[in-house]
Amino acid sequence: MGNSFGTLFRISTWGESHGGSVGVVVDGCPPGLPLTVADLQLELERRRPGQSKITTPRKESDTVEILSGVHDGHTLGTPIALNVRNRDARPEAYAEMQEKFRPSHADYTYQMKFGRRMPEGGGRSSARETIGRVAAGAIARKILKAANDIDIVAYVETVHDITMSPMDAFPERAAVDATPVRCPDPATAERMVDRIKEVRARGDSVGGIIRCRIRNLPPGLGAPVFDRLEADLAKAMLSIPATKGFEVGSGFAGTAMTGSEHNDPFESAAGGVRTQTNNSGGVQGGISNGEELYFRTAFKPTATILQKQDTVNTAGENVTLQGRGRHDPCVLPRAVPIVEAMSALVLVDHWMRQFAQNRSFAFSS
Amino acid sequence: MGNSFGTLFRISTWGESHGGSVGVVVDGCPPGLPLTVADLQLELERRRPGQSKITTPRKESDTVEILSGVHDGHTLGTPIALNVRNRDARPEAYAEMQEKFRPSHADYTYQMKFGRRMPEGGGRSSARETIGRVAAGAIARKILKAANDIDIVAYVETVHDITMSPMDAFPERAAVDATPVRCPDPATAERMVDRIKEVRARGDSVGGIIRCRIRNLPPGLGAPVFDRLEADLAKAMLSIPATKGFEVGSGFAGTAMTGSEHNDPFESAAGGVRTQTNNSGGVQGGISNGEELYFRTAFKPTATILQKQDTVNTAGENVTLQGRGRHDPCVLPRAVPIVEAMSALVLVDHWMRQFAQNRSFAFSS
Amino acid sequence: MGNSFGTLFRISTWGESHGGSVGVVVDGCPPGLPLTVADLQLELERRRPGQSKITTPRKESDTVEILSGVHDGHTLGTPIALNVRNRDARPEAYAEMQEKFRPSHADYTYQMKFGRRMPEGGGRSSARETIGRVAAGAIARKILKAANDIDIVAYVETVHDITMSPMDAFPERAAVDATPVRCPDPATAERMVDRIKEVRARGDSVGGIIRCRIRNLPPGLGAPVFDRLEADLAKAMLSIPATKGFEVGSGFAGTAMTGSEHNDPFESAAGGVRTQTNNSGGVQGGISNGEELYFRTAFKPTATILQKQDTVNTAGENVTLQGRGRHDPCVLPRAVPIVEAMSALVLVDHWMRQFAQNRSFAFSS
Amino acid sequence: MGNSFGTLFRISTWGESHGGSVGVVVDGCPPGLPLTVADLQLELERRRPGQSKITTPRKESDTVEILSGVHDGHTLGTPIALNVRNRDARPEAYAEMQEKFRPSHADYTYQMKFGRRMPEGGGRSSARETIGRVAAGAIARKILKAANDIDIVAYVETVHDITMSPMDAFPERAAVDATPVRCPDPATAERMVDRIKEVRARGDSVGGIIRCRIRNLPPGLGAPVFDRLEADLAKAMLSIPATKGFEVGSGFAGTAMTGSEHNDPFESAAGGVRTQTNNSGGVQGGISNGEELYFRTAFKPTATILQKQDTVNTAGENVTLQGRGRHDPCVLPRAVPIVEAMSALVLVDHWMRQFAQNRSFAFSS
Repeated sequence: MGNSFGTLFRISTWGESHGGSVGVVVDGCPPGLPLTVADLQLELERRRPGQSKITTPRKESDTVEILSGVHDGHTLGTPIALNVRNRDARPEAYAEMQEKFRPSHADYTYQMKFGRRMPEGGGRSSARETIGRVAAGAIARKILKAANDIDIVAYVETVHDITMSPMDAFPERAAVDATPVRCPDPATAERMVDRIKEVRARGDSVGGIIRCRIRNLPPGLGAPVFDRLEADLAKAMLSIPATKGFEVGSGFAGTAMTGSEHNDPFESAAGGVRTQTNNSGGVQGGISNGEELYFRTAFKPTATILQKQDTVNTAGENVTLQGRGRHDPCVLPRAVPIVEAMSALVLVDHWMRQFAQNRSFAFSS
Repeated sequence: MGNSFGTLFRISTWGESHGGSVGVVVDGCPPGLPLTVADLQLELERRRPGQSKITTPRKESDTVEILSGVHDGHTLGTPIALNVRNRDARPEAYAEMQEKFRPSHADYTYQMKFGRRMPEGGGRSSARETIGRVAAGAIARKILKAANDIDIVAYVETVHDITMSPMDAFPERAAVDATPVRCPDPATAERMVDRIKEVRARGDSVGGIIRCRIRNLPPGLGAPVFDRLEADLAKAMLSIPATKGFEVGSGFAGTAMTGSEHNDPFESAAGGVRTQTNNSGGVQGGISNGEELYFRTAFKPTATILQKQDTVNTAGENVTLQGRGRHDPCVLPRAVPIVEAMSALVLVDHWMRQFAQNRSFAFSS
Repeated sequence: MGNSFGTLFRISTWGESHGGSVGVVVDGCPPGLPLTVADLQLELERRRPGQSKITTPRKESDTVEILSGVHDGHTLGTPIALNVRNRDARPEAYAEMQEKFRPSHADYTYQMKFGRRMPEGGGRSSARETIGRVAAGAIARKILKAANDIDIVAYVETVHDITMSPMDAFPERAAVDATPVRCPDPATAERMVDRIKEVRARGDSVGGIIRCRIRNLPPGLGAPVFDRLEADLAKAMLSIPATKGFEVGSGFAGTAMTGSEHNDPFESAAGGVRTQTNNSGGVQGGISNGEELYFRTAFKPTATILQKQDTVNTAGENVTLQGRGRHDPCVLPRAVPIVEAMSALVLVDHWMRQFAQNRSFAFSS
Repeated sequence: MGNSFGTLFRISTWGESHGGSVGVVVDGCPPGLPLTVADLQLELERRRPGQSKITTPRKESDTVEILSGVHDGHTLGTPIALNVRNRDARPEAYAEMQEKFRPSHADYTYQMKFGRRMPEGGGRSSARETIGRVAAGAIARKILKAANDIDIVAYVETVHDITMSPMDAFPERAAVDATPVRCPDPATAERMVDRIKEVRARGDSVGGIIRCRIRNLPPGLGAPVFDRLEADLAKAMLSIPATKGFEVGSGFAGTAMTGSEHNDPFESAAGGVRTQTNNSGGVQGGISNGEELYFRTAFKPTATILQKQDTVNTAGENVTLQGRGRHDPCVLPRAVPIVEAMSALVLVDHWMRQFAQNRSFAFSS
C-alpha cells in the first residue's frame, strides 16, 4: 500500500536500491503523445548518480526500457511500464548495516513496520525509488508543455546557510543545469559547491531548500475541499525522501503580515483578470488563479555521514556505527528533477480532473 | 471530486456556508465504539463561531444530528452521517460580493473552475465546511485514545510576530483552551489577544502558526513511498482553508544544520528503542518511530478585511470593494480543533492500514 | 468501507432501515445542471413502498431534501447531499428478530462481520438503503439525457416461471410503468400479478429477471482491462440486494453457440460503423461499440416469508421463526428504478473518464 | 485508467500482446510470505499457450522474473513487480488486421476509444494481459492457503452444449488438471475435447461455463453495500476477456424457485452455525457466511475463427476478412487459472479489509 500516486494519471512505482530493478507503471496517460526513450533518459540523466563532482560516485547509467504502452513512437492510452536495472549494487558494503540501524534513516522504522527489511542501500527507502517518479514525470511534463506551454522549473535556492537573492524573471532551465548544484545564480552556486565540498571533506552533510516555479497554468485547476492544488503538491513534496517542509506563496513568512498587506488585489488586464501581487502563490481556495504558482520545499541534511554515531543493533543493544559507502553530501542538486517530476504529475492529474467534471458536459441552463 | 479524505477511515463532507446544512459521512468506522452526540458537540463547541470576544459574532449553535451508523450508543460499523443545519445565514449581506470578487478569497477561482458559484459567505469555500471534519475527527480521536492512549494537542504558537517560547512538557488541553486564543502560555496569550483586537479595530487581520503534538504513537504507522505519514499530514494541513505552509520535526530550520547535528542517535531504553534527540519529529522514512510526532502549520492573515480594496467585478471591470460582514480577525483559535481533527483522521487511517497489511496474516517462515 | 460507488461521479450512501434517515452524497457532479426536488422525487416514487397492491404496505412518502450542492435551481459542482427521513419505523415489530437470525437474510453475516447489528428491518442491509442510489441515479440520468439523449429503460422480463416474449422495439418507459409489475407486455404483466398475489396468499415469495436496455450510447465508454463497462455494470447489479446473476448480450445462452454464429459482423451504415447482429450486447473488449447495450439481472425470491422456518438464535440454539411484518412478495417491480439508477451511475462515470483521458489533450502527432 | 484492481491488495497490470513484455505490480502484499519464482511459474504453466493439443500453438514459455519486493525468499511488504517477456511475436501475421476490424474483437472499440491501437494480436485487449493476473493470483492463493487453508478450485463445467453432471465432493485440483480441457469428469472431458477438435477442424470455435468453488472461507468477508463479496467477484469475472455472464449460488435458476424453496435454514452444528442448504452460494447480504462459496462464469465462443467474415476497414468500407493465425478454438481450459486468480485477489483484499475495520481496534463497551 502507498506506492501509487494520482487519481486519473496514476503512477505505481516499484523497486529496491540493490534489488533487480526499479520502475514505474503509468496508468491513464492520454493516447497519441509522441514518446521515445530519449524523452525519459533526458530527465533521468539529471537525477542519476555520478553526474558531477558533488554527487555520489555510485556508477549507474540508469538506462530505461519501455516495456509497454508505446507503439510506433506514440502512447497508446494503455499502461506505460518503465524499467531501470540496478547495476552497481554492492550488497557486501552493507554487512554492518544489516545489524545496526543507521540514525535518521528508515532502517528502524521499516523493521518495525514490516518485521523485516532489505538492508542493502536502504532497500525500498532508498532515493533510487524516485527513478520511476522522474521517468513518469518526464511524460507528464511533455503533456503539460503540449497542452498549454506550461513550464515547471525548480532550482536550489538555499544550501545550508547560503541563499541566493530573489529572482524575478522566470528561470531558464539551462541556467539551472549550468551549475553542478543547480542554482541559477553562478556566484551563489560556487559558494554552495564550496560548502558541500567542505562538509564532505569532514564526513558531514548539508541540506537546503528548493524553489519550484510554474508558469502558464490556466485558472481552475485544483479540487477543493481536500484535493486542493496546494494540498496535493504538499503531499507530493513530503513524499520525497529527506523532505521536512513545504510552503506555497508567502508561506511561513506570510504569517507575519496583516491581511491588508497580504491580500492580492485583482485588476483587469490584457489577458483577463490578474492580481497585482502574488502572495497567494498562484492558488486561491485550493484552485489555480492563473498567476505563477510557486512553492518551496525543505530538505534535511543527508542522514548518511562518514562519522562514528551512537545507535542500537537489531538485538536492541547500544553500539556505535562508522558510516561508510558512497553517498551524496547534499541531495538537493539531484532532487531538483524529482521536485519537478512530482509537480508535473500533480498538475496533469488535476488538468484531467478539471476536464472530466467541468468540460465533459455542457448544459444549457 | 475532491470532497473525500482517507482510504480506510474515509470521510466525505458536504455543504455550503449559507445553504441548508453542512455535514459529513464517515465510512469505515470500526463497530462497537461508544458514541454520543455529546462526544461530537464537545469538539464542535471549540470550532463554532461566537465562542469568544476575538471570534466572529455569527450566531451558530452548530448542533449536530447523527443520521445513521449509531445504534444503542455504539457505532455499527456502517456509515455515520452527521448533519449540522445552518441557522444564522444572511444572504442579503453578500449582495455586493455577488458582483465583485473578494481579493485573496476563492470567489474568482470557483467562478473560473465551475462557471458558477454560491456567493453567500463563500459557499463551499467557507470554513464552515470544516464542521464535518471536526465532527468526524472527534470520532477518530476517541478511537485513538481507546487504542493506545494517543493524545493529539495543537495550540497557537505564533500570532503575527508574537511567538511563545518553546514548551518542553506535553501540553494539557485544558491549558490550551483556558485562553481565548488557544495559546497555553497565558502571558503570550494575552499579548496575542491584544494584537488581534488592535488589528480588528482598524479593520485588518493577522495570521500565525499552529503547532500540533502527538504522543503515544506506536512505531510503524505510515505507508511509503507516497503515503508517508508526514506526506498525508501535509496534505491534511494544506487542505484546511487559509494554510500556506507545513513543516515536520526540524522543518525549514533544519536545513541550516549539518547531518551530524541533525541526526537523531538511537539508544536502548526501558520502553524499547528511543532516539536521543527528535529532529525527525517522530517520523523516519515516512513511518512513525515511536517518538513524539510534531509539526507546524502556517495560516495566512484572514482575507476578509473591513477596508476598501481594489478588485474586479464579474464583468471584468476594475472596481473597489468595501469589506463588510462578520468575520474572524484571526482564524487560528478556531483552527486548533480543525488541525487536531485532520491529524486524527490521518492517524486512524494509517493505523487501520498498518493492521491490514502487517497484522492480518502471520506467516511461519 | 464499501459504501461508495464510482470514480469520478462518486456516491456515498448512508442509513439504516429504521434509523434516523437514509441518504447519499454525490461528489463530482458537473456544475450547471438544472436540478429540483421534483426531478428526484419522480424516481423515488417509482421505488417507494406502498405504490401498488403488490408491494409492501409500509407507509413511507420518501420525501427527499437537498441539503447542499444546488443553488438557484442548478448544480454547483460541489457535493450534493440528499436526505430522506424514515417515518413508518416500527422497531417493536422486530423483537423476535433481535434474537433469531432470519434465513437467507443478512442478520447472521452482519453479526459475524461487525460483532453487532441493528436488528430492526435489517438495519443497513435493508433495501431502504437503495433510496440514496435512486436519488443519485436520477441526477445521472438527467446528465446522460442532456449529453447524448441516452435512454435507460429496465423492465421485468420474468417473474417466477412467467416470461414475456422478446421485444424488439426499444420500450417506452410509460408502458413499463403502466403495469404494477413493470412488465411492458400487459397480458404477461397480468399473469405475473396473479402469480405474485397467489404466492403472497400462502405466505410465500417469488423472484425473477429484469432486463435493462440502453440506447444512444456513443462508442468508446469503458476502461479496460479491469473497469470494463460490463464489469462495472456487473458489480453495480450484484451490489443490489437480492441479486444472484448478471449477463450481458448473449450471456449464458451464448455459450451454446459457435463463434461463427455468435460473432457480430460489422457493416458500414449511415450513422457510421454498425454490427449486423448484437450478440455482444453493445460492448466489445470492455468498451461500448455504439449498439444498444442490454443486460439481464437475476433476483432471488424475497427472503422474508410468512411461514415457520428453522433457524438459530444468537445463543447458537436451534429454534423456529414465524415470519411476520410488512414485505414485498416480489421485489422486482420496485427494483426496476434501482437497476436503472445503478446503470446511469456507471455510465456517467465512464463518460467522464473517457473525456478525462481521451479528450482533455489533443496532440499533433 | 482501469488497469488496477483491488483496494488493499492492489494489482496494476501492463503490456500488449506483441509488445516488449506483460507484467504486474502488486502493492499491499503482507511481508514475510515465502515466495519463489517456482510458485508463480506453477500457475503460469496452467495458463500458457501450447500446453495441450487443444490450445493455441503460439510458443511462449511465459517465464516470469521477479523485479522487486522479494528478498531472501520472502516478501518484503513492498511492491512486487513481475515481468514476462513476449517471445513468439509475429507482427507480420497481423498486416490485414491493421486495416480491417475483426468481428466481435476489440479492434473497433479500442480505435474508437483511443483514436489508435496496436493491431498485432489485439495489443492490450489480448488475453496475454491476464498473465499478470495469474502471477499475482498465485501470491494471493498462497496467502489464503496459509491464512485459513482456503482452497479455490475452478473447472470447466460446460463446453458448447456438453455439461458435466453436478459434483458434490469438493474437486481435487489434480483431477481438474488431469484432462486437457480441465473438466474433472474424464468421460465428459473426452466429449468436450472431441467437440473442440471438431469445431476447430471446420475453422470454428466454442464457448462454455466455468464453475468456481471455494472452501474454508470464514464468515464475515465482504463490504456492503457496494463492495459485496459477490459484487466484487462479478466485476472480477466480467473483467476477464470473453466473459458474458456471472451467477452466484442459485443464480438465474433460482429465479424459478419460491422463497420457501430457496431460503437456506440455519442450524447449529459442530463448527458453529451452518445452513441446511446452500442456495445462497456462501454469501448473504454481500458477506460470506462460512459455507462453500460457488459461482459460475459464462465465456462466449472465441471471436477468432478461420472463416471468411463480413466487416469494415479503417476507411469505413465494407470488406471481407479471412481469419488466420494461431488461436484457441475454446478459451475455457486456459481460463480456469484466470478465474481462480481473480477470485483469490478478491478474497485476499476482503480479508485485509475485514481485518482493518473489524479487528484493528477492540472497544470495551
